[in-house]
Amino acid sequence: MDTTPPAGSDLAELTAAIAAFSAERHWQPFHTPKNLVMALSVEASELVEIFQWLTPEQADDVMSDPDRGEHVREEIADVLSYLLSLANRLGIDPAQALRDKMVKNAIKYPAGAPGL
Amino acid sequence: MDTTPPAGSDLAELTAAIAAFSAERHWQPFHTPKNLVMALSVEASELVEIFQWLTPEQADDVMSDPDRGEHVREEIADVLSYLLSLANRLGIDPAQALRDKMVKNAIKYPAGAPGL
Amino acid sequence: MDTTPPAGSDLAELTAAIAAFSAERHWQPFHTPKNLVMALSVEASELVEIFQWLTPEQADDVMSDPDRGEHVREEIADVLSYLLSLANRLGIDPAQALRDKMVKNAIKYPAGAPGL
Amino acid sequence: MDTTPPAGSDLAELTAAIAAFSAERHWQPFHTPKNLVMALSVEASELVEIFQWLTPEQADDVMSDPDRGEHVREEIADVLSYLLSLANRLGIDPAQALRDKMVKNAIKYPAGAPGL
Repeated sequence: MDTTPPAGSDLAELTAAIAAFSAERHWQPFHTPKNLVMALSVEASELVEIFQWLTPEQADDVMSDPDRGEHVREEIADVLSYLLSLANRLGIDPAQALRDKMVKNAIKYPAGAPGL
Repeated sequence: MDTTPPAGSDLAELTAAIAAFSAERHWQPFHTPKNLVMALSVEASELVEIFQWLTPEQADDVMSDPDRGEHVREEIADVLSYLLSLANRLGIDPAQALRDKMVKNAIKYPAGAPGL
Repeated sequence: MDTTPPAGSDLAELTAAIAAFSAERHWQPFHTPKNLVMALSVEASELVEIFQWLTPEQADDVMSDPDRGEHVREEIADVLSYLLSLANRLGIDPAQALRDKMVKNAIKYPAGAPGL
Repeated sequence: MDTTPPAGSDLAELTAAIAAFSAERHWQPFHTPKNLVMALSVEASELVEIFQWLTPEQADDVMSDPDRGEHVREEIADVLSYLLSLANRLGIDPAQALRDKMVKNAIKYPAGAPGL
């Protein structure tokens, strides 16, 4: 099985690479929807942990520290990885889900309107 | 500004669409790194909320209910949206970060080795 | 069954009141350890959601708005409720756990030492 | 300053002990409401992390493993600690908040009614 990660940034290709990676390690029995949402939220919280004691200014500047920047990059990768695994497990196309949500949000939050 | 969502599933194109969407609504002042990690974790928890009282069997079958399935799709879209906004704000290429993490994990978790 | 909430702030009494409340509603089958940790983290994130777009100054002043202040109070109640349910389910005394952790932290973080 | 943890399980006394502990370490500038909600959610997620790959049966039995059980106890302590610090910072009595929420929930979820 070729599990060389794809060169581009296409979500379908990244999803296939992650699925192959998990299959080679026999992780599918653990990767139930319930467990994957838990893991996704845990990884998101590991991003929060990096930022929790930083001032807004320090947070803006987080990538200027190489170690901390690398830590942020890795946690972003982990969140993306579990998100793609979850979507794949549930048969959801995350790119299409995002497009559909943008259309819905464009109505809910008209451009030019004040506030969040 | 053309904010038509892109047709494909390329992360760079999706990121550009989301950035344009936020810019048109003047959300950038709110979209600091610290706030975006908070929002990302909140959206991940909204996924957890859908699954928290379900049995493993009900969780596996979550997409068979149209309303609940659409809810899951929307929350996956929200997580992806904030993840791309955060990565964009920090100058991180999430596809490259994922590839790099897979290389690192391939060493940490050799294929065929037992356990997680 | 008397489920009048206790008048004081004793954790053991609050725990007993919550256990009786759940029992009367037949929630125990849902209140497994795995589900309770999920619910606890979801409630904690609902607190985060209140604060995510606020400036530090607005966050400091959150209780001056009656509606928002009441929302914060309710979410703090929800976190405490699930925390006590979880501890009770696992046979953990949360007050004793906290005391033990403080003793451990007093060694890890000596008073007067700089930094976090 | 006497920061001996209190012997009982009274929330007000535990709160005072934690406040003194933080003050002795000069942590108050970090313990803003925004930062404390982040830390609270991170600690809740550290509990989730312990349970994420466990089967429901393994999760029910989590305390039978001494190391894992101690880990759970410590994370419960951490969640309680930040919850009390947050409530204290915001001037909220968490026991009273819980009682008020129970009264509200008793109306929302009448005893004997089916379902969650």
